[in-house]
Amino acid sequence: MRILVVNPNTTASMTRKIGAAARAAASPGVEIVAVNPEFGPPSIEGYYDEVFSIPGIIAEMRKAGDVDATIIACFDDTGLDAARCLSLTPVIGIGEAAFHVASMIAHKFGVVTTLSRSIAPIEHNLQKYGLASRCSGVRASDVGVLELEEPESNARKSIAAQIERAVHDDGAETIVLGCAGMADLASDLARIVGVPVLDGIACAVVLAESIARLGLRTSKIKTYAAPVAKQYSGGYAPYSPC
Amino acid sequence: MRILVVNPNTTASMTRKIGAAARAAASPGVEIVAVNPEFGPPSIEGYYDEVFSIPGIIAEMRKAGDVDATIIACFDDTGLDAARCLSLTPVIGIGEAAFHVASMIAHKFGVVTTLSRSIAPIEHNLQKYGLASRCSGVRASDVGVLELEEPESNARKSIAAQIERAVHDDGAETIVLGCAGMADLASDLARIVGVPVLDGIACAVVLAESIARLGLRTSKIKTYAAPVAKQYSGGYAPYSPC
Amino acid sequence: MRILVVNPNTTASMTRKIGAAARAAASPGVEIVAVNPEFGPPSIEGYYDEVFSIPGIIAEMRKAGDVDATIIACFDDTGLDAARCLSLTPVIGIGEAAFHVASMIAHKFGVVTTLSRSIAPIEHNLQKYGLASRCSGVRASDVGVLELEEPESNARKSIAAQIERAVHDDGAETIVLGCAGMADLASDLARIVGVPVLDGIACAVVLAESIARLGLRTSKIKTYAAPVAKQYSGGYAPYSPC
Amino acid sequence: MRILVVNPNTTASMTRKIGAAARAAASPGVEIVAVNPEFGPPSIEGYYDEVFSIPGIIAEMRKAGDVDATIIACFDDTGLDAARCLSLTPVIGIGEAAFHVASMIAHKFGVVTTLSRSIAPIEHNLQKYGLASRCSGVRASDVGVLELEEPESNARKSIAAQIERAVHDDGAETIVLGCAGMADLASDLARIVGVPVLDGIACAVVLAESIARLGLRTSKIKTYAAPVAKQYSGGYAPYSPC
Amino acid sequence: MRILVVNPNTTASMTRKIGAAARAAASPGVEIVAVNPEFGPPSIEGYYDEVFSIPGIIAEMRKAGDVDATIIACFDDTGLDAARCLSLTPVIGIGEAAFHVASMIAHKFGVVTTLSRSIAPIEHNLQKYGLASRCSGVRASDVGVLELEEPESNARKSIAAQIERAVHDDGAETIVLGCAGMADLASDLARIVGVPVLDGIACAVVLAESIARLGLRTSKIKTYAAPVAKQYSGGYAPYSPC
Amino acid sequence: MRILVVNPNTTASMTRKIGAAARAAASPGVEIVAVNPEFGPPSIEGYYDEVFSIPGIIAEMRKAGDVDATIIACFDDTGLDAARCLSLTPVIGIGEAAFHVASMIAHKFGVVTTLSRSIAPIEHNLQKYGLASRCSGVRASDVGVLELEEPESNARKSIAAQIERAVHDDGAETIVLGCAGMADLASDLARIVGVPVLDGIACAVVLAESIARLGLRTSKIKTYAAPVAKQYSGGYAPYSPC
Repeated sequence: MRILVVNPNTTASMTRKIGAAARAAASPGVEIVAVNPEFGPPSIEGYYDEVFSIPGIIAEMRKAGDVDATIIACFDDTGLDAARCLSLTPVIGIGEAAFHVASMIAHKFGVVTTLSRSIAPIEHNLQKYGLASRCSGVRASDVGVLELEEPESNARKSIAAQIERAVHDDGAETIVLGCAGMADLASDLARIVGVPVLDGIACAVVLAESIARLGLRTSKIKTYAAPVAKQYSGGYAPYSPC
Repeated sequence: MRILVVNPNTTASMTRKIGAAARAAASPGVEIVAVNPEFGPPSIEGYYDEVFSIPGIIAEMRKAGDVDATIIACFDDTGLDAARCLSLTPVIGIGEAAFHVASMIAHKFGVVTTLSRSIAPIEHNLQKYGLASRCSGVRASDVGVLELEEPESNARKSIAAQIERAVHDDGAETIVLGCAGMADLASDLARIVGVPVLDGIACAVVLAESIARLGLRTSKIKTYAAPVAKQYSGGYAPYSPC
Repeated sequence: MRILVVNPNTTASMTRKIGAAARAAASPGVEIVAVNPEFGPPSIEGYYDEVFSIPGIIAEMRKAGDVDATIIACFDDTGLDAARCLSLTPVIGIGEAAFHVASMIAHKFGVVTTLSRSIAPIEHNLQKYGLASRCSGVRASDVGVLELEEPESNARKSIAAQIERAVHDDGAETIVLGCAGMADLASDLARIVGVPVLDGIACAVVLAESIARLGLRTSKIKTYAAPVAKQYSGGYAPYSPC
Repeated sequence: MRILVVNPNTTASMTRKIGAAARAAASPGVEIVAVNPEFGPPSIEGYYDEVFSIPGIIAEMRKAGDVDATIIACFDDTGLDAARCLSLTPVIGIGEAAFHVASMIAHKFGVVTTLSRSIAPIEHNLQKYGLASRCSGVRASDVGVLELEEPESNARKSIAAQIERAVHDDGAETIVLGCAGMADLASDLARIVGVPVLDGIACAVVLAESIARLGLRTSKIKTYAAPVAKQYSGGYAPYSPC
Repeated sequence: MRILVVNPNTTASMTRKIGAAARAAASPGVEIVAVNPEFGPPSIEGYYDEVFSIPGIIAEMRKAGDVDATIIACFDDTGLDAARCLSLTPVIGIGEAAFHVASMIAHKFGVVTTLSRSIAPIEHNLQKYGLASRCSGVRASDVGVLELEEPESNARKSIAAQIERAVHDDGAETIVLGCAGMADLASDLARIVGVPVLDGIACAVVLAESIARLGLRTSKIKTYAAPVAKQYSGGYAPYSPC
Repeated sequence: MRILVVNPNTTASMTRKIGAAARAAASPGVEIVAVNPEFGPPSIEGYYDEVFSIPGIIAEMRKAGDVDATIIACFDDTGLDAARCLSLTPVIGIGEAAFHVASMIAHKFGVVTTLSRSIAPIEHNLQKYGLASRCSGVRASDVGVLELEEPESNARKSIAAQIERAVHDDGAETIVLGCAGMADLASDLARIVGVPVLDGIACAVVLAESIARLGLRTSKIKTYAAPVAKQYSGGYAPYSPC
């Protein structure tokens, strides 16, 4: 089985971290192909960065050729719906993956993300997926995405502080880390805070494998139908199924 | 990995069908232990039957000893919350498993179940899990649970008719079969109706494997804390962790 | 009129307290029959205890014979749906009764219960009944159910402290006591905190009388239809209407 | 016990019918005082009529003096919030009363009212009370309020037709009649359609008695606090508690 | 274009302030006719005052004759539905206007109103309009309506304090002032608190102009149909379209 | 006042139609600048097309320089959140504009759009804006976007048929046309179907003017803060405020 993991930003060190996290979660024999777009933002912090990453995500999906499943490795699930229209095989976002898994191990989960501007996109996704009522709240740690790449930063401490508040003030029984760049912190934080801490990459890998193994594919009858054939201008390739 | 699959009713032929469906979905090397209670109802049709099956489910969980995950193989997810209090490892219901998977391959899913008295329990679960907004409607086929065990019955035809209405009238883009006893019909129905058709047993097996593989466990800090030690009367064993 | 009040746990002192509270609320001429199961948990604290109490509740309902209404006297409304399938006359849970009454005397009600593990079952019931939007929050006092039976405990003080927070921080305008064992505290607490404080037993008695007096019965056409006739194994009696 | 039943419209024949229905539901020894305003609309059909009836409702409440509870006998629960501010004892609307009772005898209730313009006010109330999720739909029979006073009208037949659709198309398991003027049809319709049919007047009487008997009163700490003392112009009496 | 602005209370100084705020927001050539009822409460603080103001609002609408749009200048949108039944041209409430505008300039808005008894009416409106999920919370400043007319009062300070809490504790990104009498404070407060602060009168004027300019009118097919012709008693004029 | 109207697709004939509709709605003295991207899809039909149009929308916003407000003239409100991050002045989507206006002239509005794949994006927006409860349903006419540009097509008839069903089956009291390309049909359809029919372009123009005239701007404190300065790769311009 071959799973494409697209880091939607262009930061190669983050793609490596994401690839490592994905491989650590994958079953033996599953090939993880971790890529990032050649063009677009180096990190995704809020709605503006998001939209510039999506054409690059789609381009990477086309380049990758046949895969058994695709993972969008940004916690905002950037471009997830468009990617589902494109691909004939399952596409999973790391945000949705973490929310679904968390819902099966706890009554309520809390989310701790990077900047306050990322709260609204996550809240909108929770509402869209239906899982808002399962979330005790989305908290920002005020740690920038690329600051997570700096080992000497205060990131872990700031995130742990918000986790404490999520558990004690909001009623969270498990925690979802709200950024792909936090993948390497999950097990440490779980030990410190005493509740399960979920990284969306690992969750997405096991869910993508699961759905692919069952032979299930995105329903193509309406919302995610293959795009209507049309000529895009400005260098965008026309749609062809991948 | 060893996964316990508890058929909450006492009908052995159904336990065999459920075991076969679980094994077909399991990864190589995963042992499926399919059991049913020694006491309780032969089928679960509505709220009344449900509650009599749960002490037997718990008894089977105790007997099974150490497992990596447990599956409750009734679409009503009978006793799921109690089982989560008992077990230190993940517990997944086949209803919730199917709802979560369906939410990742379609905008809206429809549910087709057996009798009309099962609609309310399923609606309540959808509401509790948060996924009611993802469901286009729950429809009854008026096929009794044990009628599904009779090869010559009209079950398939009645279920297919309701699937058609779910897709055309309600806007479903994928279908969840609302009874463990329908497991063997899923692939046939998918071919007939042209949308993905999900069986909860297969979904639960891959999710249980997934969550277990990630080393995640039910959060024990509040809702699913180990029961307070106390002496039950009337032959019920006192709680001890399993 | 004869009303059966089933205390779902096996603690006789609590059954006596419940019976006294029920009789204090009943109209002249109404006979209150307060019983508890012979087998099951001595107190209900969370989802695990709940499910072991239900077969005993049903057994008591059968033993009681003809009644004009039945009350399930655990604040989680344990087994309420199953009991409605069984009985031809109305069945009322003390949780739902208190929520409905509170909704008619205040814009928002707060709930103060025993342990934090009981918050989720109450929240799920509120959502299921539709009244979650009327509730300002469910708070735990960290007082165990049987601690309420000890006169010298700190229970009253701990509960009063949570009521203060419900009113001042959450916006509650009335309070619902979230445990049958708190029945004897309601009037004292109301005096102390200056808002109406509701005990579910009293609420359930007047509602059960009311509905019975109007000649209304549970609708039997779908969700609460009489169970499908079937042979249970393991000593459970087959269904027969009561 | 003395219960004031205010018919918000000025039609005396309807007040008599409402009084009779209230007396039929009341316990022995409960005095029903059925009144209607001296000024205002002869029937309430939609939002416009509603607002002209409220000053007259309040005037009747003042005239009545001390009562143990007050019932607003229009299905739109016209002026209910204002009446709760005024009165120190409980105030119940016949719409809310029927919704609460229906919620305790069925999974879903349907409402059948008079004109289509009354659907929105009822839907708004259901949403406000929290019980919208318990309602399978509000249907209009296209029978005007005063047409219900004409014995030879087609009212019963038109209402029965909508009940059939509520049960068969919408999934209602019990029916709430959406107009005080339909009180005399409830038992006949229940016999015809085979599900419980609720009249709000009877429901309100038993609930008002119940709440009064428990000594509960509307919470006065915030939403329903006694009005701020101020001089109204134009002949309206200043507020004084009743 | 001629827009009628009805201050629902009888306080002439407030009508002047409202008229000035409306004129400041109106386009050149738009005539603002600011009026108040001759009878009713001098300020609207909670549900009780509200209902006594509506017949006077309707009377002013009749007196005004033909207008292009009508504005109800009480933040509770008192009588809005009745006014829509009456008028053939658009009717806008200042509460709803502010909520709609705030929703287009921020993810979440907070509301700061006068007394705590006004919170529930505003929450009910938000729920009815659908915009509750856009509101981060409704806060009371404990400043009475007429206290806003006293220049030396502490009103501004109390309101600013609640705005700070709305932004910092609740997550509001813009603020709606919850009383017509606060119109003159909006720009000052916006400067002090650093987020947009909306006054409903200005919002209602521009929306009323907008809708009128597009030639749109309230839909008259169901909820807001012209009232059924009937004879009101007690001096109320019969309905005639205005 | 200068308002930028961005047609997110590259079809110049549609940009002209949109520009004409915008000018027809604008106040005297308001300059409408109607543009479309140089690169991207020729029509937007579903999630896939959407994401390719957004970089071009942003590019047009940069090119346009200072404007008083910006309108995104695709009914899916494509890129609206990103555009709000970019611009210091208000940005309005034609979908949201129509939903807000419709909510002020009717209890419930129906939406009639082009293809069934556009239903989910519209439903998600309604949910995100909070207005889903105001919508009676979203219906597809099965008319492609560019088919609307062909005068001889059956478009009007197909749309009218769905409007009839929205009014008669779903309870819509007004209709929102769910595609910018339907702007020229609104007044004709309104005449045919007898309820107000709203075109989002006209609604957006008057709302944009309104909000700009009040001096209100998008709140920049959190969700729509100016993007974090960073170097995009692949030819995308870095963010600079416009």
